[in-house]
Amino acid sequence: MFPIDEQPPASIELWFDFASIYSYLSIMRIEALAQAAQIRVLWRPFLLGPIFKGFGWSTSPFLLQAEKGAYTWRDIERLCQKYQIPWRRPSEFPRRALLPTRIALLGASEPWIGAFCRRVMHLNFAEDLPIDSAEVMLEVLSTLTPRPAELITAAQSDDTKTRLRTQTDIARSRGIFGAPMFFAGHEMFWGNDRLEDAVALAAAVTVSPSVTQGALPT
Amino acid sequence: MFPIDEQPPASIELWFDFASIYSYLSIMRIEALAQAAQIRVLWRPFLLGPIFKGFGWSTSPFLLQAEKGAYTWRDIERLCQKYQIPWRRPSEFPRRALLPTRIALLGASEPWIGAFCRRVMHLNFAEDLPIDSAEVMLEVLSTLTPRPAELITAAQSDDTKTRLRTQTDIARSRGIFGAPMFFAGHEMFWGNDRLEDAVALAAAVTVSPSVTQGALPT
Repeated sequence: MFPIDEQPPASIELWFDFASIYSYLSIMRIEALAQAAQIRVLWRPFLLGPIFKGFGWSTSPFLLQAEKGAYTWRDIERLCQKYQIPWRRPSEFPRRALLPTRIALLGASEPWIGAFCRRVMHLNFAEDLPIDSAEVMLEVLSTLTPRPAELITAAQSDDTKTRLRTQTDIARSRGIFGAPMFFAGHEMFWGNDRLEDAVALAAAVTVSPSVTQGALPT
Repeated sequence: MFPIDEQPPASIELWFDFASIYSYLSIMRIEALAQAAQIRVLWRPFLLGPIFKGFGWSTSPFLLQAEKGAYTWRDIERLCQKYQIPWRRPSEFPRRALLPTRIALLGASEPWIGAFCRRVMHLNFAEDLPIDSAEVMLEVLSTLTPRPAELITAAQSDDTKTRLRTQTDIARSRGIFGAPMFFAGHEMFWGNDRLEDAVALAAAVTVSPSVTQGALPT
């Protein structure tokens, strides 16, 4: 993939859940930041639900803890204003997103993955529309890829379902307890608030691989 | 207190717990930021313990949830490096801090409150030393105020104990669910990651009181 005398570009892993509001912010912001830092984004869709169940939580902590939930809705509204990202509080939260997650898993290395993820997030958090629907996904994919119907069929296959379960197992085994989660160098960063730090570390790794071993860039 | 034709300076409220690691970061950083923005800091010590108990938690969520706890220790280490703040993982966490909290409550409007809070936090998170001790507090206060022993006696009085309980009740009634928590204008901001946003809003309120009613500064 890369000329033999060139290093592959350094990368940042973005683990995200389409129902997660702070994942929304990072999905809308990451490609511009990564491009400026000349690093690649590795898209890692997964489901937070099974992770939360492992903690004994039946749903999002924002619903389980009323005080934090009330705060979070205001926090996200302010952050969207700050980042100039559209926002409309979804009428369903956390919104079901199995099909788009499976599609994102299949398309994770495709050139359209960033545009796809932003479109799905926009539907959820700016348009308040359902996303776990073959009809909606067909419409989204039709502008991105030549054979959208085949992709949706593949996304609904048992094979893809198994792959998504494996993906979530990998998330758990890597210590992921929330979303968005970033991996850069040997470091894990949690939450949209850490996106800039994670990008900076990933970019520093490009310049000097020794950064991954020791000190963080300041 | 202020000349009649002058507005009092705008302010930011900092609600903090001496055992909270993210409160540590904000206590070390807030006065420099507030000074640059020409706003006043209102120091609001309180105890997170009773707040957490109200959620049915027996201790810090960092202890109750192992994955998040492991992450948090690394996160704080990285942030201290970023902010150039000393860090040593405390051997006792959350550390008992009743006496320093009561002293901070009594001294909240004193000119030495910022220096006192930074010193207590440094003892906890940079020197790994006990802070809930009259001997240690006597030493800390002796460089800050002429009658340290009297202050410690007052801090241990029933009256101060009642005041601290009331303070924690106020925290609960204002929707505080963690620390540090900032109030600026009519907005509440949670966590050290929001300190800059809170300071910016408080400063904007000084310039134009209408900011508190509507849009946030961008």
